[in-house]
Amino acid sequence: MNISHSTISKKAGLPPGALVHVGKKKTDKVNISVIDYSKTEFSEKICSNVEECFPFKETKNISWINVDGLHDTKVIGKLGDHYKLHPLLQEDILNTSSRPKAEAYDNCLFLTLKMLGISEDGNAVVSEQVSFVLGNNWLISFQEIQGDVFDGLRNRLREKIAPAMQFGTDYLLYRLIDIVVDNYFFVTEYMSEKNEQLEEKVLMEANTQTLQEIQRQKKLLIDFRKSIAPLREAVGILQRENTSFIQERTIRYLRDVYEHIIQVNDSIESQKEMVASIMDLYLSGVSNKMNQVMQVLTIIATIFIPLTFIAGIYGMNFDNMPELHWKYGYPAVWVIMGVVLVIMLFYFRKKKWL
Amino acid sequence: MNISHSTISKKAGLPPGALVHVGKKKTDKVNISVIDYSKTEFSEKICSNVEECFPFKETKNISWINVDGLHDTKVIGKLGDHYKLHPLLQEDILNTSSRPKAEAYDNCLFLTLKMLGISEDGNAVVSEQVSFVLGNNWLISFQEIQGDVFDGLRNRLREKIAPAMQFGTDYLLYRLIDIVVDNYFFVTEYMSEKNEQLEEKVLMEANTQTLQEIQRQKKLLIDFRKSIAPLREAVGILQRENTSFIQERTIRYLRDVYEHIIQVNDSIESQKEMVASIMDLYLSGVSNKMNQVMQVLTIIATIFIPLTFIAGIYGMNFDNMPELHWKYGYPAVWVIMGVVLVIMLFYFRKKKWL
Amino acid sequence: MNISHSTISKKAGLPPGALVHVGKKKTDKVNISVIDYSKTEFSEKICSNVEECFPFKETKNISWINVDGLHDTKVIGKLGDHYKLHPLLQEDILNTSSRPKAEAYDNCLFLTLKMLGISEDGNAVVSEQVSFVLGNNWLISFQEIQGDVFDGLRNRLREKIAPAMQFGTDYLLYRLIDIVVDNYFFVTEYMSEKNEQLEEKVLMEANTQTLQEIQRQKKLLIDFRKSIAPLREAVGILQRENTSFIQERTIRYLRDVYEHIIQVNDSIESQKEMVASIMDLYLSGVSNKMNQVMQVLTIIATIFIPLTFIAGIYGMNFDNMPELHWKYGYPAVWVIMGVVLVIMLFYFRKKKWL
Amino acid sequence: MNISHSTISKKAGLPPGALVHVGKKKTDKVNISVIDYSKTEFSEKICSNVEECFPFKETKNISWINVDGLHDTKVIGKLGDHYKLHPLLQEDILNTSSRPKAEAYDNCLFLTLKMLGISEDGNAVVSEQVSFVLGNNWLISFQEIQGDVFDGLRNRLREKIAPAMQFGTDYLLYRLIDIVVDNYFFVTEYMSEKNEQLEEKVLMEANTQTLQEIQRQKKLLIDFRKSIAPLREAVGILQRENTSFIQERTIRYLRDVYEHIIQVNDSIESQKEMVASIMDLYLSGVSNKMNQVMQVLTIIATIFIPLTFIAGIYGMNFDNMPELHWKYGYPAVWVIMGVVLVIMLFYFRKKKWL
Amino acid sequence: MNISHSTISKKAGLPPGALVHVGKKKTDKVNISVIDYSKTEFSEKICSNVEECFPFKETKNISWINVDGLHDTKVIGKLGDHYKLHPLLQEDILNTSSRPKAEAYDNCLFLTLKMLGISEDGNAVVSEQVSFVLGNNWLISFQEIQGDVFDGLRNRLREKIAPAMQFGTDYLLYRLIDIVVDNYFFVTEYMSEKNEQLEEKVLMEANTQTLQEIQRQKKLLIDFRKSIAPLREAVGILQRENTSFIQERTIRYLRDVYEHIIQVNDSIESQKEMVASIMDLYLSGVSNKMNQVMQVLTIIATIFIPLTFIAGIYGMNFDNMPELHWKYGYPAVWVIMGVVLVIMLFYFRKKKWL
Repeated sequence: MNISHSTISKKAGLPPGALVHVGKKKTDKVNISVIDYSKTEFSEKICSNVEECFPFKETKNISWINVDGLHDTKVIGKLGDHYKLHPLLQEDILNTSSRPKAEAYDNCLFLTLKMLGISEDGNAVVSEQVSFVLGNNWLISFQEIQGDVFDGLRNRLREKIAPAMQFGTDYLLYRLIDIVVDNYFFVTEYMSEKNEQLEEKVLMEANTQTLQEIQRQKKLLIDFRKSIAPLREAVGILQRENTSFIQERTIRYLRDVYEHIIQVNDSIESQKEMVASIMDLYLSGVSNKMNQVMQVLTIIATIFIPLTFIAGIYGMNFDNMPELHWKYGYPAVWVIMGVVLVIMLFYFRKKKWL
Repeated sequence: MNISHSTISKKAGLPPGALVHVGKKKTDKVNISVIDYSKTEFSEKICSNVEECFPFKETKNISWINVDGLHDTKVIGKLGDHYKLHPLLQEDILNTSSRPKAEAYDNCLFLTLKMLGISEDGNAVVSEQVSFVLGNNWLISFQEIQGDVFDGLRNRLREKIAPAMQFGTDYLLYRLIDIVVDNYFFVTEYMSEKNEQLEEKVLMEANTQTLQEIQRQKKLLIDFRKSIAPLREAVGILQRENTSFIQERTIRYLRDVYEHIIQVNDSIESQKEMVASIMDLYLSGVSNKMNQVMQVLTIIATIFIPLTFIAGIYGMNFDNMPELHWKYGYPAVWVIMGVVLVIMLFYFRKKKWL
Repeated sequence: MNISHSTISKKAGLPPGALVHVGKKKTDKVNISVIDYSKTEFSEKICSNVEECFPFKETKNISWINVDGLHDTKVIGKLGDHYKLHPLLQEDILNTSSRPKAEAYDNCLFLTLKMLGISEDGNAVVSEQVSFVLGNNWLISFQEIQGDVFDGLRNRLREKIAPAMQFGTDYLLYRLIDIVVDNYFFVTEYMSEKNEQLEEKVLMEANTQTLQEIQRQKKLLIDFRKSIAPLREAVGILQRENTSFIQERTIRYLRDVYEHIIQVNDSIESQKEMVASIMDLYLSGVSNKMNQVMQVLTIIATIFIPLTFIAGIYGMNFDNMPELHWKYGYPAVWVIMGVVLVIMLFYFRKKKWL
Repeated sequence: MNISHSTISKKAGLPPGALVHVGKKKTDKVNISVIDYSKTEFSEKICSNVEECFPFKETKNISWINVDGLHDTKVIGKLGDHYKLHPLLQEDILNTSSRPKAEAYDNCLFLTLKMLGISEDGNAVVSEQVSFVLGNNWLISFQEIQGDVFDGLRNRLREKIAPAMQFGTDYLLYRLIDIVVDNYFFVTEYMSEKNEQLEEKVLMEANTQTLQEIQRQKKLLIDFRKSIAPLREAVGILQRENTSFIQERTIRYLRDVYEHIIQVNDSIESQKEMVASIMDLYLSGVSNKMNQVMQVLTIIATIFIPLTFIAGIYGMNFDNMPELHWKYGYPAVWVIMGVVLVIMLFYFRKKKWL
Repeated sequence: MNISHSTISKKAGLPPGALVHVGKKKTDKVNISVIDYSKTEFSEKICSNVEECFPFKETKNISWINVDGLHDTKVIGKLGDHYKLHPLLQEDILNTSSRPKAEAYDNCLFLTLKMLGISEDGNAVVSEQVSFVLGNNWLISFQEIQGDVFDGLRNRLREKIAPAMQFGTDYLLYRLIDIVVDNYFFVTEYMSEKNEQLEEKVLMEANTQTLQEIQRQKKLLIDFRKSIAPLREAVGILQRENTSFIQERTIRYLRDVYEHIIQVNDSIESQKEMVASIMDLYLSGVSNKMNQVMQVLTIIATIFIPLTFIAGIYGMNFDNMPELHWKYGYPAVWVIMGVVLVIMLFYFRKKKWL
């Protein structure tokens, strides 16, 4: 999920508006599909080339043009030129490493954000750039890879049951943002579960592997926040920006999305605190282990060193050692050793080391 | 008290306003009761079905409709439709994982917050979503579970002694918020006591169990803050928002509540610092223990290793070891050992290890 | 100095304005005294009952009514009702756990703050709630316990030498706040000295007792800040709030107090950093001690273990050990041991362990 | 990359406007070159002395005067006086240790920032002060050392393909800033890669050298942020400042640069968190190593100390030790030792130390 | 450099305006000197008593009155009364523990700040309170001790070469502030050098003395920041405050100073981070040392304990130990020991302990 800037350097020195796709090619072909609907009508079209979606600019119906794949800059350029998108806006669509942001242009409203999901093996968070351009009665959405996250909404439109039918393109934009933000909750849930698993793991065993998992989790949260935090401001701009593209009625809905983004942000912050506290757990787990090792060493050494000393004494070869010749000298030594042992054990018990 | 987002995903892809209860079913039946009063009159009613509380919308008296249980979305839907509540507002009532917030609608004022309490076994903090909708002369309160926290106020109304009788619905709203916020003080007190117990425990014994308790306390405080911090802003909005629903006179009371929320927040922040400092205590408790273990080992080893060496010397089998044949060789060795011991003890005393 | 909220729960469910004294009874009787003065006159009176101070509301002179003791809510209630104090204001006077704050009412200006002092044994910081109500030509001050902190000012008034004689009640209020804030400097000085003592102690000896003292100091500073930080805002409100109670000329004086509060706050923040750094000192003191213990163990063990091994070799009972029968075998062993010892010592010296 | 203030003290006590070059002489001669172009024309000139670039002030074409080398204060002074640059502005150009900032003067707009790059050996970040002065139809750029970073743009101008030809000097300024900011991405990429290398290294081996590398990385990031953070505000000023020098159209481009700077800042903050977390890794790597050392010691000591004790017992010279004379006494001792060993190994396996 | 509040308590209870010198007496006599100049004239005067500088209030020339020494409150009082300085202003001049601040009065502008320098032994930072009062055509500067920091400017005035001659008193004020702020750079340089020395020292040897030096450095930086941070706001006030005392032209110069203060602040913040990171270095230096100690112990013990055990075995006195009677028993034992040793060394090499 590490958002790489590694290809932004392709662009250095080029004028703004020089369309260079910043990002990896994630899909083979650019797929363009159009959904055109009004309160009563609905039609759908898969465009085989970009020119096919040009006429929708003029229809009175609401046209939702969805573009999957950003690597063919020529296609994006043609589309952008027909829909009179500002060169900088086109550049932003292609730059998949840009921060979420919203900008108002004279003829349209632009929003770019990150779609986040859980990878198929369930172990990683994947990130994808999604951009929306909202015009008068059209909305273009750009995705890096072909996904099915908007299919739920598409089906509702097909069946003509969605309230989106009733309202304008701004409401459609809201619905799309809402879907993306709702997905954030999946990711926070996933993170939260992983946190709890990690905590249990750390309590069980604090080894290098758990440490690396903690690091990975920390990194994911840092990246996650970097992808989401700016969105708050962006959606705030959509609410405040006094454009004709967003109707009064939709602003309340956007405020709702705004609240959700704050909630996700709060959740990320809490989870970062949690990870920090798991790190503490880990570190004190390590200390505890060390402590235990030391205790074992100390107990063994402290018991046997004095005993070995006593044995050493009577291993001396002095001519004149009366104890050696006593009848019960040997058993007496055992008794002494036993007494020492008992004192030691008593002492350790008092210290709660045993 | 971990506020779970685990069911928000039920909603992903559905239009806003689709009423889905996000949260666990905490009570069996939705209970609706109405208190209707003016300066002089007072009547009370338990509604067996939702339609029974519809007429109160039109009465000139102040009507307080209390709804316990949010799982029956149909009931909430009917009520909401009759009282013309915005679909997003209805959604917010049902979404028990939402942050505290206040929003002004054309025909009403909406506030949702968290009721916090101590669980029956006294060991956990429990959280419940409470929402208020304030209309012209009616106020609807929604609770997840049937509780008795508002009973004190109800009794005062029954006995017609409360100043609430004199004032409008906005004052009633203030009284309800005040009760919820006063409960926060119980929780902070409880937390504060637990902190002190923890500190004592840690000073007594720093083991894995105390560590887990510290972690739990930290988590509770993080969740606690997440539930309360946004309320500050929400009550601030109630004060500033220039609506006809809140009278000038009530604003001063709301400012008072606002001050209380800040005080709770301050208290949580202080307690978080305390927990961090208890963690420090714990860690240095662990170090101290290790230190002590090491000292014991060092003292024993340092005393006996040289003595054992001396014994070893005279255990050697050289033909020509004159000391072995001295008359007082053996006692002399004991004397030497005694001297070594005394020097050692003297050294340890100087080092303050004994 | 731990500000307890433990009695605020007495109030839960009661209407605002229900006068309940939140705090411990710190004095036996409520003492009321009045100082009444103008530019030329001065009179003083000890009131035996609360009604005696009622007439001063109407006099043209400046009347300063001082109330010591807050536990007799009836007295406060009577006084408040005569002076037409808002129920919430009366509540705030009695609630000794509230944060410092300033509020403008229609007929008066209210300020509550914490008086801080050093306990008689010099070991603790004690806190007391002080409230001021500023009316047109009267000022009422409320203290929890009878103190002599304002006596300096009283004497100056008695001797008619204070500039306070020249100016209005607002200037009197400023003087009283100034006295309280000046006392904060005593406390910061005391804290600062304790910090330095602690630092020296920790450098001398890092044991559990010093650790507890560091914790105590940290706690004191957290509480201290909680008592003072909100005052900054409160005095800021007094300056900005455009009321007739504060004259233009006095605002400059209040700004001066404001600067002092900032200075105290800065000082507390610095001291918190200091305590954190003393904690670091402590922890590395503990590590150093451990290090030293380890070094002693290592030196002793590393010197004697090889020597003991050599002795062990020649304690073996093999038939065929030529060294044993050499004439200078025994002295030779001593020489070898000496060489080993010298090498060891040389090594330790190089490692700077000796 | 450590930005040194060490020569600012040269100036103490001198009046502002006294031109002293603060910084090291990084180039031998001051090189001045002028590019003069309009929508259709293009001319280029290398000036052998400063007076040669004076006439360009009056031409209607866009004149970009580039000055490499700041050590010859006389040259800068002459240029500054001809172009009527404020003494403080001239001072800021020469002070290579100043923070990035933008300032509007009556007759021009001034921006100074840091050009950052990776040193030739790829191991360090190098910093250079770059200043721009934007007049009506001229732009002067000042660099400390002769660089080729703007050559890409120069070539585009030469080939008359750049959109810069179409627009004014303000657009030229934007292009130059954009080039500098794009270079920041190289540096963040470089840092990010180094972070990952460091993390791997630390996981492999935690020694003093890795520690020093972590420190160096931390320092670089601190300096890096110090060089870039103020630029955000500076470019913000360029956008907001309502001067005739920046046209409406260019503001959108500046906002784009502004977004990039925020992105770089975010990235630096994330990387600082990463370095902190690598430091944690390092520290727990050290602990782990210690742990391992301790375990080995404990295992060896714990196994052999009891065995040595047993051997010591039968090395005693008591007359009356029946075991010594048993036929299978010696093998029996080996058996006992074997049993002790097996118990020990079993115990260690249970503890997961083996 | 520890700014002591220890004497502010002298003032508690006194009215504001009671002139008490808060600070130590740093000089014996109060020295007053006056420089009086216009664009063309220049005169200088050492005043033997305070009355001699009274006439300069009325002259049309620019009069700069410099007062060295603040302990003679009577002199300050007389001067203040003649120049109609507000009692609070006089108090602030004398209170050498106050924070830097700027305040506009009706008849003058007041600025107080800290002059910082390096002590003569080069080991400490010394702090001195400097205050400026700017009137219509006079400026009074107050210093605690007689210093020569302003001598550079005085000489330039004497030689009539300074631009200060051309401009008004506000420009003179700017020049004086600029000199003080330029001195801050010396101090930051000094701190920065000390940081680097400390870092090297810590890498060389981590002992208690280096720890104390780190603590001292940290403290210095905390105090340093406390002395400088508020100045930023103060100079900001001078810029914004719309008084007749500061001319439009001078504001640009003040902004320059403002930038410098920010730069110093940034530098202090960076250095604080550096010190924190040196502390980390120290701590891991301590850990490393411990690690090394442990390794030596472990290596020695692990090698010799098994060898000693072998020797112990053949020191036993069993009747029936065939090995003892073997011809090559003794050399065989040496061989076995050699093999054990080689295995151990091999193991340690693999573990990278050797």
